Amino acid sequence: MERKKPRGILERLNAGEVVVGDGGYVMQLERRGYVKAGHWTPEAAVEHPEAVRQLHREFLRAGANVIQTFTFYCSEDKLEISGNVPNITGAQINEAACDLAREVANEGEALVAGCVSKTPCYVDTHNETEVKAIFKKQMDDFLKKEIDFFIAEFFEHVEEAAWAVEVLKTGGKPVGATLCISPEGDMHGVPPGECAVRLVRAGADIVGINCHLDPLTCVRTVKLMKAGLEKAGLKAHLMIQPLGFHTPECNHSGYLTLPEFPFALETRAMTRWDVHQYAREAYNAGIRYIGGCCGFEAYHIRAIAEELAAERGFLPPASEKHGLWGAALEMHTKPWVRARSRREYWEKLLPASGRPKCPSMATPADE
Amino acid sequence: MERKKPRGILERLNAGEVVVGDGGYVMQLERRGYVKAGHWTPEAAVEHPEAVRQLHREFLRAGANVIQTFTFYCSEDKLEISGNVPNITGAQINEAACDLAREVANEGEALVAGCVSKTPCYVDTHNETEVKAIFKKQMDDFLKKEIDFFIAEFFEHVEEAAWAVEVLKTGGKPVGATLCISPEGDMHGVPPGECAVRLVRAGADIVGINCHLDPLTCVRTVKLMKAGLEKAGLKAHLMIQPLGFHTPECNHSGYLTLPEFPFALETRAMTRWDVHQYAREAYNAGIRYIGGCCGFEAYHIRAIAEELAAERGFLPPASEKHGLWGAALEMHTKPWVRARSRREYWEKLLPASGRPKCPSMATPADE
Amino acid sequence: MERKKPRGILERLNAGEVVVGDGGYVMQLERRGYVKAGHWTPEAAVEHPEAVRQLHREFLRAGANVIQTFTFYCSEDKLEISGNVPNITGAQINEAACDLAREVANEGEALVAGCVSKTPCYVDTHNETEVKAIFKKQMDDFLKKEIDFFIAEFFEHVEEAAWAVEVLKTGGKPVGATLCISPEGDMHGVPPGECAVRLVRAGADIVGINCHLDPLTCVRTVKLMKAGLEKAGLKAHLMIQPLGFHTPECNHSGYLTLPEFPFALETRAMTRWDVHQYAREAYNAGIRYIGGCCGFEAYHIRAIAEELAAERGFLPPASEKHGLWGAALEMHTKPWVRARSRREYWEKLLPASGRPKCPSMATPADE
Amino acid sequence: MERKKPRGILERLNAGEVVVGDGGYVMQLERRGYVKAGHWTPEAAVEHPEAVRQLHREFLRAGANVIQTFTFYCSEDKLEISGNVPNITGAQINEAACDLAREVANEGEALVAGCVSKTPCYVDTHNETEVKAIFKKQMDDFLKKEIDFFIAEFFEHVEEAAWAVEVLKTGGKPVGATLCISPEGDMHGVPPGECAVRLVRAGADIVGINCHLDPLTCVRTVKLMKAGLEKAGLKAHLMIQPLGFHTPECNHSGYLTLPEFPFALETRAMTRWDVHQYAREAYNAGIRYIGGCCGFEAYHIRAIAEELAAERGFLPPASEKHGLWGAALEMHTKPWVRARSRREYWEKLLPASGRPKCPSMATPADE
Repeated sequence: MERKKPRGILERLNAGEVVVGDGGYVMQLERRGYVKAGHWTPEAAVEHPEAVRQLHREFLRAGANVIQTFTFYCSEDKLEISGNVPNITGAQINEAACDLAREVANEGEALVAGCVSKTPCYVDTHNETEVKAIFKKQMDDFLKKEIDFFIAEFFEHVEEAAWAVEVLKTGGKPVGATLCISPEGDMHGVPPGECAVRLVRAGADIVGINCHLDPLTCVRTVKLMKAGLEKAGLKAHLMIQPLGFHTPECNHSGYLTLPEFPFALETRAMTRWDVHQYAREAYNAGIRYIGGCCGFEAYHIRAIAEELAAERGFLPPASEKHGLWGAALEMHTKPWVRARSRREYWEKLLPASGRPKCPSMATPADE
Repeated sequence: MERKKPRGILERLNAGEVVVGDGGYVMQLERRGYVKAGHWTPEAAVEHPEAVRQLHREFLRAGANVIQTFTFYCSEDKLEISGNVPNITGAQINEAACDLAREVANEGEALVAGCVSKTPCYVDTHNETEVKAIFKKQMDDFLKKEIDFFIAEFFEHVEEAAWAVEVLKTGGKPVGATLCISPEGDMHGVPPGECAVRLVRAGADIVGINCHLDPLTCVRTVKLMKAGLEKAGLKAHLMIQPLGFHTPECNHSGYLTLPEFPFALETRAMTRWDVHQYAREAYNAGIRYIGGCCGFEAYHIRAIAEELAAERGFLPPASEKHGLWGAALEMHTKPWVRARSRREYWEKLLPASGRPKCPSMATPADE
Repeated sequence: MERKKPRGILERLNAGEVVVGDGGYVMQLERRGYVKAGHWTPEAAVEHPEAVRQLHREFLRAGANVIQTFTFYCSEDKLEISGNVPNITGAQINEAACDLAREVANEGEALVAGCVSKTPCYVDTHNETEVKAIFKKQMDDFLKKEIDFFIAEFFEHVEEAAWAVEVLKTGGKPVGATLCISPEGDMHGVPPGECAVRLVRAGADIVGINCHLDPLTCVRTVKLMKAGLEKAGLKAHLMIQPLGFHTPECNHSGYLTLPEFPFALETRAMTRWDVHQYAREAYNAGIRYIGGCCGFEAYHIRAIAEELAAERGFLPPASEKHGLWGAALEMHTKPWVRARSRREYWEKLLPASGRPKCPSMATPADE
Repeated sequence: MERKKPRGILERLNAGEVVVGDGGYVMQLERRGYVKAGHWTPEAAVEHPEAVRQLHREFLRAGANVIQTFTFYCSEDKLEISGNVPNITGAQINEAACDLAREVANEGEALVAGCVSKTPCYVDTHNETEVKAIFKKQMDDFLKKEIDFFIAEFFEHVEEAAWAVEVLKTGGKPVGATLCISPEGDMHGVPPGECAVRLVRAGADIVGINCHLDPLTCVRTVKLMKAGLEKAGLKAHLMIQPLGFHTPECNHSGYLTLPEFPFALETRAMTRWDVHQYAREAYNAGIRYIGGCCGFEAYHIRAIAEELAAERGFLPPASEKHGLWGAALEMHTKPWVRARSRREYWEKLLPASGRPKCPSMATPADE
């Protein structure tokens, strides 16, 4: 990997570069045994730093230009409600997570993003002062450490996201903001275009979508955000970090409504070839910060970097262990496997589930 | 985790204990960016020891009682043919892999198994002397390190497996041997029952099946092995390390014949609940060494340990981050997710693929 | 079957009665060997009257209150273009079809509807005079015979349908008009609500949807028509004669775009239980003329009559050979078949296709 | 249709001709409103002769060389048990059915086969004398009319079928005998090869399989029968009349065990193109009497005749309304439909079900 002195996130985006984001932490660490589903809190940053560090490294190696701190749901109110982390404070987790992200980011040319997410307090109180105090506390933890910018992510209500942006903006660093909403808009019915306008007016430098729905749906939503900004005469960079799962039947509330959530989503996982298509469509839509959320593993992030290798001019380190479009199968001993060492094969393949008694679509809980 | 002084593999099996095996290395490390598909060689043990160490740890934490050395395809003839590892010798990989396995095994109560697998030499030459020399060389690498027993695995021909067993037996440690065959028998048509007899007569203490086919198919094959042994008046322990993928349409050659192999197998991945069923059926069949191969991640291994917790008397460390049968969903904010916090829900669920344009079964390449 | 002197279609609908329509002719007679797919012309009325008569009888026996003349595509311009019927004139077919419909209608209490459908002339010329002359000629054929009312059906453009209505209205009998459009509107983009308004203003007494899309989609479109009429302060009866096939992925152009059209639609055929649901939803939407189009066989029409038996006060003749909701299975020799003699079983059943290598959804040709 | 003086069934088969059988009566007449599912008795021959006559005609027109009398389950013991036909005797039905079959057969060059099927008496009593008396009575009804040969069909036990053959043989006409068994053998475990031998030794001139399982499975079973005959040094003609449904998951008891039986089998219906494949495979297996059973409609029978047109030298009458392999779509107005006017398109098509919430395979009741 060629080392470059890291330039800032806005410097890169302003220069028209593609920034590859990292993938999903909580679901992957749940499978590895370090996060408890249902709680989804990030105490592993303190309890098992080696596991978090290794996952950061995989994303870095796969091409990620940003390492997000593993601080999802790490506000004091959420940690208390979940009751899952009795002996560790939010501040301890936030600080440990910053150290881990920084350590790994420095192994490459990556930036560290300090991340905040939606709070139980917002839904309970709608009290701007209280909610903002929570974001302020988490931001202060981050500012004790060396981070490069902030991301406010996983917000169902643009109002709360805008509050987060207003707080983070006081930290003196660039701010990205992503909502986990569908093309229909946020939970209060605010359409994506208007959501984008509100976030930019609150101070966000980068806006977009993360989690809850599959990549192609999220691209559609970001396009609506972009159109809203253009109509309002505003400018901002666009980012996207969608699910790594197919969710064609999902409505407004996303994959939480699927019967398979969260313990039987395997069948819905995207292949690396699905990600190629996603990366191309996101790029064509003008999005330049392209990553993933739940379900995105290292090989999915590598697929983003490989799909956009021509535009970016280089491949990620992990591509040394990957023949593009299956090229490494050329030397397989079985002729029928060798026949799969080409792009057309994988692009056209419709993968079978091996589950003839399962349906292909489910009834979401909110239908 | 309660520490016990590790007892030997035969000591445990003779006492009627359930030994939980580890999961699959090469496919998981391929996804993490450290193994090249098509080659599948284990140079990561030297190049990226932190990645191999972390995967060992995940399996240990999930309940594995055995850590297999990451030495798949690590015979000199295979390394040379694959051409993927120009600057590292097989001996270097074997020794590094032993060190990694030992380091992690010592963090728990686990044993280290030194593993050999099928050689290109066998298919090319059928020369017993040459093939045995290859196994001898790899065994000698292992014997420089502290390992607990040997496993000869992933053999399509019982003849080659028996040669491996004969060599490993000279190492003075217990030997397990698994074939990657279907209920129809090995590639020369030797039925499973006769395969088992040959392996035991060659000196194997534990015999069974690994890789190539899904868990329930592999259980069927081990049952045939068991019946063959009983008919011959022989005794041996039984082991199983099947795929973590659904392969109902596969014939003799297993998942290599599937159109999805190796880059679009996501849809076929087993859920943790599929593994519960598998662990129970394996146990009921009298198999006491129960693990996984390609497709088995840490959470699948944990599912084996959780399904057999009553028989074994304890849960694995990683269960501290897992509510049994979804129990941790009880406190979810969405009522429809809370409704999933019970065994019946997950046992009955038929997961949808979210891919309405994909079939449920494929045409294997050998059909 | 109790004979009643037939009352007129408007008399019935004005009294709030449910009028059961008949099913599809051309596709069923294609399967029986009397209609040529691709041409879909109705020369069988002359060539094989016994086949048309028998199909009329099946629908009558299944509960149909209306027998449509088998005169689909029977305009002179269409017959000429299709080139399928060299020695028979349109007038001969129209007259023979009227006789057949009348003969069978008189065996019950049914009415005869003389039917016209879209013309090639409209698309070629958009010439109102020419197109109207074609409808006038076909109407004159009908008026030589004793028919009860007219139906203008299978129109993709509301403009052409309105012209047909204007002509038929001069015949001095009630006129029904159905479009084969989606909820998005007609081929010129006129939304369903406005289509309904135009048809009623042209003189239609009954308006609705037929063919091209599955029942639940067609119910949605009729609801939009109803809403349009209400908004315009207009009144009309509503009718529906949808496909008997599942077409969830179809867009504007309907089932013609499906890869399975017209020779592999079997898998998409509705069960009788699907029709129960449809009949209930159509009824709940305020539709009172409820029948079917392509894919609706006699047992589907019977299912409409059986679902609405309570509202109508009687069962159709063919119900003497049908246990409601499978009741006749009670005396089956196999216990597992007896267990199917109840409503809940059939309502909940998700029928398998027995085709594990086929997808569940297709890519329509216009996507 | 070219008229030839009908030659006998054995004369035709001995000359190496392909004899096309007719399709299924009871299921088709159930859908048309004349047969009651669960009872499946043939009183329609008396009650609604026009409906039976028309279905005979469709099969004749589609190419059938044999018209089977509509006398399924028409033994006195079965009629009494079913309780469905209080005022009509078995003799009345048998005689009416012979008249209908003869009337239609004479419209073409077809033969009439008088058909008997399994009796409740056999299962209840296993009394050879009583069972044979039942067959004798039905045969005597047939012999009052002009029929050409007998078929004993739908037998689950070869013993009962052999008794039927022994009785029918005394009628002085050729006898065909078909079992509704799987490749595993009859309900007493007698394998297909031995079944064939017993039937031929009992006097059958033609032996084979009908109903219960899909065409390709039935071809496999007939092959086993053929092999059994060859091994025993016996000769007989082979016949086959399988289901027109896909039943890949069925075991011994056939489609009765499917959850979809009998009211939701639509999704499993074969396309005409499936039948082409079946007809070819049956022909290649040496079977020369090729027809269908439940699920076979006229267009399926036509597909047999069209697939074997080159071997037979002529097309059936109904082919005048059918472009071979979709040829008549060449003049369709939509370009994407025109693109379907060729064999390759239909041969390769994997039809979608339009039912994304349904599985592709079911769990049979006997699994």
